[in-house]
Order: sequence, then structure tokens, then C-alpha cells
Amino acid sequence: RPSRVAVVVKTTRYEFEQQRYRYAGLSEEDLKQLLALKGSNYAGLLERHRIHTKNVEHIVDSLRNEGIEVRLVKRREYNEETVRWADAVISAGGDGTMLLAASKVFDKFKPVIGVNTDPERSEGHLCLPVRYTHSFPEALQKLYRGEFRWQWRQRIRLYLEGTGINPTPVDLHEQQLSQEQHSRAHINERFQDQRSDISGPHLLPVRALNEVFIGESLSSRYAMCSVLFRENFKSCKPSFKFSLHRASYYEISVDDGPWEKQKSSGLNVCTGTGSKAWSYNINKVANQAVEEILKIAKKHGSLNMPLNMELVQKVTNDYNESLLYSPEEPKMFFSIREPIVNRVFSSSRQRGFSSKVCVRSRCWDACMVVDGGTSFEFNDGAIASIMIDTEDALCTVLLEE
Amino acid sequence: RPSRVAVVVKTTRYEFEQQRYRYAGLSEEDLKQLLALKGSNYAGLLERHRIHTKNVEHIVDSLRNEGIEVRLVKRREYNEETVRWADAVISAGGDGTMLLAASKVFDKFKPVIGVNTDPERSEGHLCLPVRYTHSFPEALQKLYRGEFRWQWRQRIRLYLEGTGINPTPVDLHEQQLSQEQHSRAHINERFQDQRSDISGPHLLPVRALNEVFIGESLSSRYAMCSVLFRENFKSCKPSFKFSLHRASYYEISVDDGPWEKQKSSGLNVCTGTGSKAWSYNINKVANQAVEEILKIAKKHGSLNMPLNMELVQKVTNDYNESLLYSPEEPKMFFSIREPIVNRVFSSSRQRGFSSKVCVRSRCWDACMVVDGGTSFEFNDGAIASIMIDTEDALCTVLLEE
Repeated sequence: RPSRVAVVVKTTRYEFEQQRYRYAGLSEEDLKQLLALKGSNYAGLLERHRIHTKNVEHIVDSLRNEGIEVRLVKRREYNEETVRWADAVISAGGDGTMLLAASKVFDKFKPVIGVNTDPERSEGHLCLPVRYTHSFPEALQKLYRGEFRWQWRQRIRLYLEGTGINPTPVDLHEQQLSQEQHSRAHINERFQDQRSDISGPHLLPVRALNEVFIGESLSSRYAMCSVLFRENFKSCKPSFKFSLHRASYYEISVDDGPWEKQKSSGLNVCTGTGSKAWSYNINKVANQAVEEILKIAKKHGSLNMPLNMELVQKVTNDYNESLLYSPEEPKMFFSIREPIVNRVFSSSRQRGFSSKVCVRSRCWDACMVVDGGTSFEFNDGAIASIMIDTEDALCTVLLEE
Repeated sequence: RPSRVAVVVKTTRYEFEQQRYRYAGLSEEDLKQLLALKGSNYAGLLERHRIHTKNVEHIVDSLRNEGIEVRLVKRREYNEETVRWADAVISAGGDGTMLLAASKVFDKFKPVIGVNTDPERSEGHLCLPVRYTHSFPEALQKLYRGEFRWQWRQRIRLYLEGTGINPTPVDLHEQQLSQEQHSRAHINERFQDQRSDISGPHLLPVRALNEVFIGESLSSRYAMCSVLFRENFKSCKPSFKFSLHRASYYEISVDDGPWEKQKSSGLNVCTGTGSKAWSYNINKVANQAVEEILKIAKKHGSLNMPLNMELVQKVTNDYNESLLYSPEEPKMFFSIREPIVNRVFSSSRQRGFSSKVCVRSRCWDACMVVDGGTSFEFNDGAIASIMIDTEDALCTVLLEE
């Protein structure tokens, strides 16, 4: 029975647009015009925003009715202090908000529970079943009566070492709204006080609930200022420009095996939780592909059964299901995204389960991004060790429908 | 026998680093330090730069020895005027430089020929066989003696229509070096003179030799200023921040078929030339996946032959080869990148050949990027028609080894 609960609230698209246009000193009326100009539906945005707000109020009221002290926090206000204060954290939004809420919780006994505040529009794999969005008191009663199961979702930890590394995280959401710019003077002044750069291994101050992605970015400005602004990286607000298909060069070692040079559109290392997310979309096969593959096998005289849609569907499902595993299993699944194989670059194993993945960057302007929300520069000379420690597990609950 | 040839020269990584650090007012010595700090090898960069420069000189000398007038142009200097002036265009670099050289040539009888100036490090699929890099006079003689075959590489043209569209191209390379920023004042002033926005269809001033990619970007600043700065978009220098896996929403119609809602990491539509490039990496299957698929089929009792590596390899090769087709075939191949399938979004056909693809954007901050070099905003309300017109073919030559 928690006495203090922090409710982390999603920033709706409506609020986001409002904020970013306010940066430009525009009025609500201007905002309407701008959205119209972009062909976007102002009324629709406002409607989704209202639905979300209503659902948040329902959650907060239900908690207060139980005599629970509630703190409502937005992305920007959510910090370690709030987490220390709370006995439990509830995320009110979608999976993105759940990832945010989890990102600051390092205590494996402090429950984090997700409530999907826009079930019609978002999936909410990490949230309670949709019905509890509208009947949250019922969820509370079940929790009180112990009619649930604890679930410890394994998370990934990262160590960074090598030359030219910078263990300072950058918040990709914050940074989206930034308008700040760094002048030449600014850069030169900063350039005077460089620190030395041989260091590590640093345990990075984040845990990945879904995945870690390593890939090349296109931002020359980012690369430069990340080098120049080590001591107060945040103030630099680099712009991330992720390449569409600029290749990433790196060396990879799986489970302390030999290092292998690779070139690809990036590397994804996920948890069981993340195996249902981006990793799944990277690796799943389509009926169409399976059908073509089996047709070819048939042509080579190795299929005796007539190729029917039923078989294709069965094979497709079995294959795709083999990509999923329990969030509680302390193992990772890595996948090379769009590997480039040529005379220089092999790619013997493009995916697989692993307990440890080490990556040596050969990139120019690369980033290591955790759950799509926090980024670290990862350039030539840096080495990342990616692994699971059961101490990092996230405590959450399972309620049946 | 051309009397005037324009040689389009690659900007080497060394030059690129030089330029971008010069923006920060840094000296050559500072540059060395910065690259060292990033763990990059200054000497190595300089070495590649020298090799490239040597090879360019060889090409230019060979041309001048034949009494041909030569204009050496860098990316920034290369324009329509140069193309009009030249009887033929030679790209001296890698595939990227070839794409740049081709991008300004709309005359299907003006040959564009690629020479790979760093064969040890780059593939150069679009370039002459590597040996001619060092013996360019021999290539010239063969051309003069007619010992070659003309090759017309088909290209994609784009029409843009709808609300809030902006047919102004943005050069992604240029823009990488930009330091410009737009103040609030600037934005508001601009905001006064908006143009109306119902328009189209516009034939866009580019032709895709490799592919057209449509995907969501993460740049709020870009979206805003692209709306605000229609009349002189270039001066706005928006920053592109391509999302790692932010989903793109759009509707697609293939060969004038029904519209289908989709959600994915983007859409790639390529030519035969591009079928060997990014599209291939998106669609090819790995031995590992084929092996697992055949194992599953075997489990379902439909494989009679023992599963050996030879069969797996054969099936894999056949499947992957089926993804490639001739640059001269006037057809396109589309692929949905990492499609997201759920109760809302179907994805019946994830890839296939097509003569016409229409896409209606439901994106917030999306872009349509041509050959990874030129980008157009493509937000909610915009409709793109993607097709091949044989009039747009690029004239190039085939020389055997």
C-alpha cells in the first residue's frame, strides 16, 4: 500500500506543437494557422489532448480517493528526487512515457506501472490492459488484494571506454525543442579548456528497457560541439541528424568471441521487453518472403508438400514468434540492421541471443541511443560493453484482463 | 569525341573536416587536435585525400593530352551552366559523386561517366572498372574506338501535390556544414508573408538514379521553419534529424490500386540501378534466416531433403538475386522498411515491382529524399506520385574489364 505515488504524464502532440511554436513567439492563433498550413488537424490534436487529460484526472482522483499522496510530473520535472520521494511510479501516456518513467528508477523494488491514456490510438505493450484506463480503481483494488503478479523486466547496462569518449547523456526530447546556437566565439572560448580523453570503463547512468541502438548520425555540428563542449554538454544542444542510410562502421564481439569488422545501418541490442518492439520490426519476415523462399526450395526439389498459404502462414508465424522472448529472461538479442556485405566487410552472424556484446566504434559521428530517448556520442576509438545485470531489473506488475 | 568535359570532384573526408572546423574558426593545428580527440587518424585522412587527388590529376591530364577542354568542379560549383557547357561529365570520386554528377544532367544524350578515385576503399558500382582509374588513357582510347556499350540507366521522377507542400529542394550535404540560425524576430518577420498552399502537381526538379526514400524526421525546427520560410527555403537551413525508429504514417497506392494505410520506418522506391544499393540491404535475407525458415518448414513435414548448408546457400542466393534487376528496365521496386503491423495498420504487400507508386503523407516532419542527397519536406496533406519516364534515362557507358 503505497502512501506516495508519482504520476509521470505524457506531453501530448498538442502540447508539443504549442511549446515549439511558442519558442518562435507565436500565438495560439498562429499555431492553428501553422498546423493548417502543414495540413494537420488542430481540432483533432486538441481532442486527443482532452481525452488524455481526462484519463490522467481519473487516475489521480482514484489514487487520492485511496488517501494516496500524488505528485503529477511532466517529462521535464521528472527527476531522481521525485523517484526517491515516491513509493511507486505510474506512467500516464503510452509506451514512450513508460520508458521515460522507468529510465530514472534504479531501485529494483520500486514498482513502475504504465497506464495507457489514449488506448484508441496507441498500443501500450508496456501498460496495464486497456480496460483499467477507464476503471483504475478496480486495478488499485486488485493490487491491494494481491490479485496480480510481480514482473521483473530485465534491463541492459552499458559501459563506455576508450579514447575521445563522453559519458554525458543527451535527452533527445528536450533537445528537439532547443533553439540555442553556439557562436564561433563561444566555440573557441570553450576550446581552450579541453580535458584529457583516455578514460573508462564508465558505467553509463541509464538502463535500457527496450533496446540500445548504435548508428551513424549525419550531424557535423553535433560531432564538433560534442568534442568542444565536454564539461557542459547539455548547454551545447547539439542537433541530431540521423542518416537515412549512411553506413556505420564498427567492430563487434559477441560473448567475448573474436572481433569482427562490420558495416551496416546500425546495430540493435534488445531485451525480452524490446524483442516485441523495434527489434521485432527489424527481424520479422513477411508471408511474401517466406513464400518466395519456400518456392525456391521447392524448385531445388526439396519440398514435397504443395505450397499452400496455410503452410506459408504457419512457417511465417513460427519464425516470427521465435524472435520474441520473456521480459524476465536475463539475455539480450542483437541484430545487425541492413548489413552491408562486400569484399571488405563480412557479416557471419547477423542476429542472435547473447549475454554480452562489445562494440568498437569506427564511426565518425555516431551515437548510442537508449530506448530512443537518451543518446551518447560513440565515435572512432570508443568501446561499448553491453550486458544484462539482474540487479538492474525493473519492478512492474501483471494484471490479467 | 567530346571537346569539353566537366570533371565533378568528390569532397574528401579530409576536406570536409577542414571545412566544418573552419566554420568554427579553427586552425589546421586545432583540426589535428580535434580529430585526435575523436580518435580519428589525421595522417590517414590526409593519405586518402592525396591518393584521390593524384587520381583526379591523372584523369585531367589524360583528357587534356587528348586536346579536351576540362573544367574541374567541386560539389558547390557544379551547376546547370557547367552541364550545358560540357559535352560529357566525368565524376571523380565514388558512387556518391556519380549520383551528384548525374543529379544535374537532364539531357538523355549527355554521357555521365564515373571514375572511382579510391578503389581500395570504396566499391564504386556506378563507376568504370577499377583498372581504368590508373590507366584512364586506355579507357579514352576504347571510347574513341567505340569499344564500349551505351547504357541508359532509368531514373525516377516525382510529382508533388496537395496542401502545405513545398517543392523547394534542400541539399543535405550543403546543409551539413551550415551554422546559420534563425532568430525569433527572423521567424516572425517571415511569418507575415505566407503564400497560399493548395497546389500541385509539381514535377520536382530532380531525378532519382538510385532511389527515393520517404520517412519521418525528428526535427521540430525543420518542420517549423520549412513552413515559415517558403519563399527562400535555402536561407533557412533547417536541421534534419532523422529518427532512429520513429514510425512514419502514410497511405500508399501501388499501380493505381486501392489506398492502404501503413506505418513503418519508411518507404524505399528504387530503380534497377538502386536495386543493388540500399534497397538490396533492406530486402536481402541472411543464410541464418533461410536456414531457420527451412528448418521450420521441415518440422511441418514439408521438406524431404536433408537440410545442408549447400541448399541453404543456394536458396539464399536465388532469393537475393531475385531482388536485382537491370538498370535499363523501366520499372521500380518498392519496399516498406520495418513495417509495423497491428490492429490499425495492415501491410499486405511489403515489397514488389511497380510502374507507379503514390504516397499520401500522414507524417509530421517527414522528408522525401532523392539518392540520399536532395530532400523535400513531405508532411500530412502532401501526395507524391513516383514513376519512371524513359525520357529521364541517364546516358552512361559500359566498358568491360
